[in-house]
Amino acid sequence: MTLSLKLDAEGVNALLRRAFPDGSDQNFPRVTEVAPGRALVVRPYHESMLRPGRLISGPTLMGLADTAAYALVLAHVGDQLMAVTSSLVMNFLRGAQPGDIHAEALMLRLGRRIAVCDVRLWTEHPERLAAQATVTYAIP
Amino acid sequence: MTLSLKLDAEGVNALLRRAFPDGSDQNFPRVTEVAPGRALVVRPYHESMLRPGRLISGPTLMGLADTAAYALVLAHVGDQLMAVTSSLVMNFLRGAQPGDIHAEALMLRLGRRIAVCDVRLWTEHPERLAAQATVTYAIP
Amino acid sequence: MTLSLKLDAEGVNALLRRAFPDGSDQNFPRVTEVAPGRALVVRPYHESMLRPGRLISGPTLMGLADTAAYALVLAHVGDQLMAVTSSLVMNFLRGAQPGDIHAEALMLRLGRRIAVCDVRLWTEHPERLAAQATVTYAIP
Amino acid sequence: MTLSLKLDAEGVNALLRRAFPDGSDQNFPRVTEVAPGRALVVRPYHESMLRPGRLISGPTLMGLADTAAYALVLAHVGDQLMAVTSSLVMNFLRGAQPGDIHAEALMLRLGRRIAVCDVRLWTEHPERLAAQATVTYAIP
Repeated sequence: MTLSLKLDAEGVNALLRRAFPDGSDQNFPRVTEVAPGRALVVRPYHESMLRPGRLISGPTLMGLADTAAYALVLAHVGDQLMAVTSSLVMNFLRGAQPGDIHAEALMLRLGRRIAVCDVRLWTEHPERLAAQATVTYAIP
Repeated sequence: MTLSLKLDAEGVNALLRRAFPDGSDQNFPRVTEVAPGRALVVRPYHESMLRPGRLISGPTLMGLADTAAYALVLAHVGDQLMAVTSSLVMNFLRGAQPGDIHAEALMLRLGRRIAVCDVRLWTEHPERLAAQATVTYAIP
Repeated sequence: MTLSLKLDAEGVNALLRRAFPDGSDQNFPRVTEVAPGRALVVRPYHESMLRPGRLISGPTLMGLADTAAYALVLAHVGDQLMAVTSSLVMNFLRGAQPGDIHAEALMLRLGRRIAVCDVRLWTEHPERLAAQATVTYAIP
Repeated sequence: MTLSLKLDAEGVNALLRRAFPDGSDQNFPRVTEVAPGRALVVRPYHESMLRPGRLISGPTLMGLADTAAYALVLAHVGDQLMAVTSSLVMNFLRGAQPGDIHAEALMLRLGRRIAVCDVRLWTEHPERLAAQATVTYAIP
C-alpha cells in the first residue's frame, strides 16, 4: 500500500478548527505530526475529562480516537470534511492517569470509499497503552 | 436470566450527578426509565453537539451509549461507581439529525464481573436508529 | 425502514448450497425462516464443533453468525453472492452447551451499499444467549 | 509491560494438538514463532476454505485470528486450555487470495484475568493485510 499525503499537520489543524465549533479551544486536540500512513494527535489535559476514580473518562478517549482517525484520513484525502465514522471499536486496556492524552493513528487500509485506522492512546508512556481503537471512516 | 433492580431512575440519576463534575448541567444525560434488563436515557440537544453536515457528532453519540450502559449497570448492581467500560463497539447506521438524543440500553448478560449491554440510539424516531452499540462493563 | 423480501427460506438455502463447496453436508447451516428484517438459521450439532471444556468453539459460533447475516442479506437483496462481510464483532456471553446452534439475525440498517445485522446465538434456550454479533456486509 | 514466555512454539503446538479433535490434521494451524508479546501462526491452504469469488472465507480468517490469539495467550500463561475468547472484532480489509494464511498476533495488554491481542492476517504479503482483528481472552 503506497500512501501519500495531501495535507501536513498544520493543514489538518486548520481544517479541524474550521469544522468544529469549539475547534479553537485550548483543550481541542492538536495534530502534531503526519507522515504517510500515520498521524500523532495530542489533547491537552483538563480536569473536566475525569470520571470517578480520577481516571480519564471513556468518552474523552473515544472522542480523541475518532478525531485522530479523522485527522489521519483528512491528511490523505484532503479537504473532505464530510468523511464520517462508520464504526468505532474501543478496547480499554488500563485506567488512563490524568495528563495530556496522546493518540497515534495508523492506516490499515485506505480504499476509495473506506478507510480503516488503528489508533493507540496513552497518557503516561506509549508502552503503557490506555486504549486501542479500530475506526472505520466512509469517504464521500 | 432473571434480573432485578437495585435502583430506580431517580436513584441512578442521583448517582450520575454525584459521579461527574458536569452532572448537574442541563445538557447532561437523564435516565427516564429503568426496568429489569432495560434503561432509557435522554440527552437534551445543544448545538455544540454538531459536526460538519449539521449532524450529531460521533463522540456525542458514543458518550451517550456509554452513559446509558453505565446507567443500566448501576440500576442492577447499585452504588458501584467504579464499574468501568472494558470495550465499546459503535456502529453508525445513518446521520443523526439535530434533536434530543434517545438511548435504549438492554442487558445481554449480567455476570458477577462483567455486564454486556446492547444500546440503540436515535433522535428522530426509534424505528430510524442512528447508531447501535455493544458496551461491556467490568464490575469491581 | 420498510423492508421487503426477494427470496424465501428455500430460495436462500438453494443459494447457499450453490455457493459453498460443503453446502450439501448434513451439518451445513439451514435457513428455517425469513421475514422482512429477520432470519432464523440452525446448524445441526456435530462433536467436531467442540473446544476444550466441551463447549461449542468460538469459530463455530462466529461462522454461524456470519452465515446468518449473509442469509438475511441475500433474502433482501436476492442473488448477490458477492456480498462480503466487511466487519464482524462477536461478544461471547456464556459457554455454549453442545446442541444444535440457533441464530436469529435482525436487520439494523439496509442501505444500497451496506447492511448492518444484529445476530443472537444460542443452543439451550433463546433467553440464554451464548453470543451476540454485529455483522456488516458490503453489497456489490 | 514486561512479558515473558512460559512455552515455546513447539510447546504451544503440542497443547493445541491435544486440545482440538482435528489438531493433527495437516490443515490445522501451526505456530511457527513465539517471542515475548508476539506469535506467528500459519494455516496451510486448502480449497475448502474458499467462498464465492475464490477468496478465503471470512469464517476461515476469523478462526485463524482466534487461534493465533489463543496461541499467543498460551505461550505467556502456559497450560491453561480453559482460557476462552470473550470478544473478537474482525475488520476485513481486502479479499484474501488463495494461499497459506499467515497471522501475526501481538499482545496489547496481559492482565491477570484478561488478555487483549491485536492480530493481522494476510496471504500474499504482510504489507497487504487481508484482515485485522482484536481478540480478548478471559484467563481462568
